[in-house]
Amino acid sequence: MAESRFGMTELDDLPEDLRQRISEVAQKSGFVPNIFRALGRRPAELRAFLDYHDALMDRSDGLSKAERELVVVATSGANHCTYCVVAHGAILRIRAKDRLIADQVATNPWHAHLDERRRAIVDLALALARTPELFGEADLAKARGAGLSDDEIWDVGSITALFAASNRLAHLMALQPNVEFYTMGRQPRD
Amino acid sequence: MAESRFGMTELDDLPEDLRQRISEVAQKSGFVPNIFRALGRRPAELRAFLDYHDALMDRSDGLSKAERELVVVATSGANHCTYCVVAHGAILRIRAKDRLIADQVATNPWHAHLDERRRAIVDLALALARTPELFGEADLAKARGAGLSDDEIWDVGSITALFAASNRLAHLMALQPNVEFYTMGRQPRD
Amino acid sequence: MAESRFGMTELDDLPEDLRQRISEVAQKSGFVPNIFRALGRRPAELRAFLDYHDALMDRSDGLSKAERELVVVATSGANHCTYCVVAHGAILRIRAKDRLIADQVATNPWHAHLDERRRAIVDLALALARTPELFGEADLAKARGAGLSDDEIWDVGSITALFAASNRLAHLMALQPNVEFYTMGRQPRD
Amino acid sequence: MAESRFGMTELDDLPEDLRQRISEVAQKSGFVPNIFRALGRRPAELRAFLDYHDALMDRSDGLSKAERELVVVATSGANHCTYCVVAHGAILRIRAKDRLIADQVATNPWHAHLDERRRAIVDLALALARTPELFGEADLAKARGAGLSDDEIWDVGSITALFAASNRLAHLMALQPNVEFYTMGRQPRD
Amino acid sequence: MAESRFGMTELDDLPEDLRQRISEVAQKSGFVPNIFRALGRRPAELRAFLDYHDALMDRSDGLSKAERELVVVATSGANHCTYCVVAHGAILRIRAKDRLIADQVATNPWHAHLDERRRAIVDLALALARTPELFGEADLAKARGAGLSDDEIWDVGSITALFAASNRLAHLMALQPNVEFYTMGRQPRD
Amino acid sequence: MAESRFGMTELDDLPEDLRQRISEVAQKSGFVPNIFRALGRRPAELRAFLDYHDALMDRSDGLSKAERELVVVATSGANHCTYCVVAHGAILRIRAKDRLIADQVATNPWHAHLDERRRAIVDLALALARTPELFGEADLAKARGAGLSDDEIWDVGSITALFAASNRLAHLMALQPNVEFYTMGRQPRD
Repeated sequence: MAESRFGMTELDDLPEDLRQRISEVAQKSGFVPNIFRALGRRPAELRAFLDYHDALMDRSDGLSKAERELVVVATSGANHCTYCVVAHGAILRIRAKDRLIADQVATNPWHAHLDERRRAIVDLALALARTPELFGEADLAKARGAGLSDDEIWDVGSITALFAASNRLAHLMALQPNVEFYTMGRQPRD
Repeated sequence: MAESRFGMTELDDLPEDLRQRISEVAQKSGFVPNIFRALGRRPAELRAFLDYHDALMDRSDGLSKAERELVVVATSGANHCTYCVVAHGAILRIRAKDRLIADQVATNPWHAHLDERRRAIVDLALALARTPELFGEADLAKARGAGLSDDEIWDVGSITALFAASNRLAHLMALQPNVEFYTMGRQPRD
Repeated sequence: MAESRFGMTELDDLPEDLRQRISEVAQKSGFVPNIFRALGRRPAELRAFLDYHDALMDRSDGLSKAERELVVVATSGANHCTYCVVAHGAILRIRAKDRLIADQVATNPWHAHLDERRRAIVDLALALARTPELFGEADLAKARGAGLSDDEIWDVGSITALFAASNRLAHLMALQPNVEFYTMGRQPRD
Repeated sequence: MAESRFGMTELDDLPEDLRQRISEVAQKSGFVPNIFRALGRRPAELRAFLDYHDALMDRSDGLSKAERELVVVATSGANHCTYCVVAHGAILRIRAKDRLIADQVATNPWHAHLDERRRAIVDLALALARTPELFGEADLAKARGAGLSDDEIWDVGSITALFAASNRLAHLMALQPNVEFYTMGRQPRD
Repeated sequence: MAESRFGMTELDDLPEDLRQRISEVAQKSGFVPNIFRALGRRPAELRAFLDYHDALMDRSDGLSKAERELVVVATSGANHCTYCVVAHGAILRIRAKDRLIADQVATNPWHAHLDERRRAIVDLALALARTPELFGEADLAKARGAGLSDDEIWDVGSITALFAASNRLAHLMALQPNVEFYTMGRQPRD
Repeated sequence: MAESRFGMTELDDLPEDLRQRISEVAQKSGFVPNIFRALGRRPAELRAFLDYHDALMDRSDGLSKAERELVVVATSGANHCTYCVVAHGAILRIRAKDRLIADQVATNPWHAHLDERRRAIVDLALALARTPELFGEADLAKARGAGLSDDEIWDVGSITALFAASNRLAHLMALQPNVEFYTMGRQPRD
C-alpha cells in the first residue's frame, strides 16, 4: 500500500525553506509525517497549508494546545479520515496527557465523555463539520453559554474548517499515517 | 444585517503586504470582497488563506480558470454557502462567458447540463465535498475515463478541499456577499 | 440543451381556455414561462396544476404575495430545483421589492437572514419539504408562537406540498428556466 | 384523535359539484374518504386536487390502474404517510387482486419482490420521491431498459409528484385513514 | 418467491429441544412462523436467538406485553423490515387489543398518535434504532421524564437492540412473513 | 466516568455457569471485559448473548477468526461504538497479526486498504449495518463474485446483525472499554 496515491516527494527535492521547516519537525518527532512529503508535490500549496496550520495550531492564547488537537480529532473522526485520526490522535494523547481520549473522541465524538468546556468545543466543531448549512445562532449560543469567548469560537470554527480541507486532501490521496503515530502516547509514561 | 458575525477589519488596520494585495484586487473589481476584511481579524490566517487560494486558483496549466471556478460554485452550492455561491458565481459567469451557468450549477450541481469534461470535474468535486469518507478508486476511475490527468484531479480535489474550509468559514461568520457580486456577469455584454 | 426532456407544446396546440390563460400571463411578463408549454403535453394535468397554483398563490387574505413566493423559493432551494429557483426567485425579487433575497433564501434557506415572521414561515416550509415524516406538533407550535394563524399555516403547508410536486415535475423533465427569469428584478429600479 | 388537525367539512357545506362528486365515490366505496372532507376547508383547492388526481389515476392507456396505485403506495411508504399507505394500500390490494402486495411495498418499497416491469416502475418512483435532486438520465435509462414508454415514465413521475404533495398535506393535517381502509381487500374473496 | 434466500429447515431436521419449543408456538398460533425454520439452518444460533427473545419479550414485570411489541413494530418500521412489521404487527394488534395501532406505528413511528407513556417508549426506541451514535443523556432524560424506570429503559433499549439484529437477519434472508400474519387481529372480535 | 450507566455486576453475584464461563475468558485475557459485568444485571440475557456470540465467533469452518473480527470492527466503526471498536480492535490486531488494521478499518471501513476477499466481507457487512432496507441481490452478487460461499455470507450477515445489537447495547449503557484493550496487540511482538 503506497503512502499516497499521488506519490511522495523526497525532502531533497523541496525548496530550502520547506526542507528546513520539515527537518525541524522531524527532529522533534523522530520521523517526517507523511502529509509533508505528500503535499510536497506542490511546494506553494504545502507552504500555505503549513502557514495556515501553524497560525491556528500554535497560537498561545485562548484554546490550549490540547483543546486545539481535540477539535482536530473530533472532526477527523466525524469525517472518517484515517490519516488525521491516527496522526493527530497521537498528538492529542501527548498534549492532553491522556492515553484514552483520542480513541474515544475519534470513534464517537458526539458522546465521548468530556467535561463541559471540552464538550462545548467538540459540539461546536461537529456542528460545522458535517452539516455546515445548518450552523447558526443556536450553536453559537451554546458555545457562549459554556464560557467560550468569541476568539475561542473563531479558533474552534477555523480549525474545523482547516481540517475539513485537510481531511479531504487525505481522502483524495488515500494518505497513510506513519507507523509511528499508531503507538505514540499510548504508554503510561509517554 | 452585519457583513460578518465577527466584524470587519478596516484596510488601514492590516499589515502593509495584505493592504497592498487587497488593494490590487479592489482596483480590478471595483470593491473589496467582504471575505478579505472579515478574515483580516487574523492577518496570519488571511495571508495563508490567500496564498493557498492563489496557488490553486491562479495556476496557468491544467484546468482552465473557468473550470476552477466551476469546482468552487459546485461545491459551494452543495454546501449551501451563500457568500461563495454569490461571489464565485459572479466570477464563474465572467470566466466562462456564460450568464446562466452559475445559477444552474449552484442550484443543482448533480444534474446541471454540462459537457462531458465539465461533468467529470463537477462529479469528482461533489464526491469529495459532502461524503469524503466514501471517496475512492471508482471516483478516480470516472475522472480518468473523462480524460482528466493526475494533475487536474489534484487540482479539482484540492480546490474542493480549500472551499470545504472556505464555505465553513463563511458559515461560521454568516458572511454576506458584497451587493456588487449579485449582478456581475449577468448582462449580455459583460 | 432542450427546455424539457419531454418536449414543448405549441400554444396553438392547446385547448382554447389554456391558450387564453397562458396568453394573459405572457402579456404581463413578456414571455411564456416554460412550465406551461412543458406541461401542455397533458392539458388536463396542466389545467389542474394551474387551478391549484392559482388557488394557493393568488389568495388575497393571510400571507402576502411575497410571503407565498418566499415559501416557493425556500422549498425549491432545499429541493435543488433549478427551474423553480430561477423562475420564482425572479418573482420573489419583484414581489418583495428586494434584489438580494432570492439568492440568499434559495442558497441557504435554513439560515438566510429574515425577520421573525418570515423565518417562521420558511422554517415551517422546510420542516415539511424534506423530511415530512418528522413533521409534527413542535413545528406547529413554533409557527403559532411566531403569530401564524391556522389559515396561514395551511397556506405555508399547502404551497410547500404543491411545490414538492412542482419541483419533482421539473426534475422529471429537466425543465430549463426561460433566460428572462435570470435577470428579472435584479436592477435597482425593477 | 381527530381525523385532521384542521377539522372536517360537512358534505352539506361543500359546493354542489364537489358534493355530487364525493357522493359518487362514497356510493361505490360505502364511505367518504377522510381526505375529501379534510381538504373541503378550501373548495377550490379540493377541486384542483381531485382534477389532478383523476387526470392521472383514471387514465385508460399506458400504466394499468394497479400499477398507478403501486406508485402511490411505494412513494407513500417511502414518505411514511399513514393516510396514503392505508387508503391506497386498500385500493392497491383490490386493483392488483393481491392481498399481500400493499404491506410489502409500503414497508420496504426498495426490495419488495416484484416482476421486472413493476420493479422498474417502483424504482423510478423512489428515485424521484426522496432525493429528486439526484434524479437523472441513469434513472430514465433503467426505466426505458425495462420497456417503459415515455408516456408511462411521465405517468410514474407525475403520480410520484402528485403524491409528494398529497403525502405532505396528510402530514400537515395529521390526517387519519377511515377505519374501513385497514381491512379492505384483505379477505380471500375480496 | 421463496420464504428465505437461504432455504427453510424442516422441523424434523431440528434438534429435539427446538422441535418441541417450536411445536408449542405452532400449536398456539396455528402455524410455524417462518423465522424459526429459516434460522433452523444453524440450530445453535436459533436457540440463542429464541433464548434472548424470550428473556426480553416474556418478562412479567415492567413493560407490558403490548408495550414490548410496540417497541418491535416501531423499530422494525423504522428499519423497513417486512417480516417483523407484518408478524409483530399481528401480535401487537392482539396484545394491545387495537386493530389500527400496528399499521399506524409501523408506517410512521415518529408521529403515530400515542399516549405519553407509549410515545416516550417509542421515542426512546427510535433514538437507538437508526442513529445509535447520537443516543445520549437527553434521550434518557426524556424517558425518565415520562416516568420510565431504569429497568423499563433497559427493556426498551435491549428489545430495540435485539430487533436491530432480527431486522437485519430478515433483510439478509429476504424473509417472507407467513400469510396468516397479514390478517391476524384485524377483525373486531379478534 | 462509570463503566456503564446501569452499573456493573460483581462476578460473585452471577449464576455459577456464567461465573465459570467468564472466569475462563478472564484467565486467558487477564481481565474481565466490561460487557460481561454490564450485561450481568440480567443473567438470562447475558447467557443468550454469549451463546449467540460463541455460536458465530467460534465456528471453525468458513470465515477465519480474523475475518470474523474484521466484520465486528468494520460495523462497530460504522456505528461509532467505542466499546466494540476498542475491545474488538484489540482482538482483531491479535487474530490478524496486524498492528495497524484495526484503527484503519474502524476509522474508515469503506476504504481501508484490504485484499479483495476482505474488502468483499467488509462491503457486505457495511451494506447491512447502516441501511439494511437497501440490502439486496446486488450486495449478494458482489459477495459471491469475490468467492464467498452462502455459509460465509450467512456468517458475515449474522455477525453484522449480532453487533447491530451489541453496538446498541453499548450505546444504551455508555459502556466504557477496559483500559487494557487500548494497547493490546500494538507491540511488534504481541
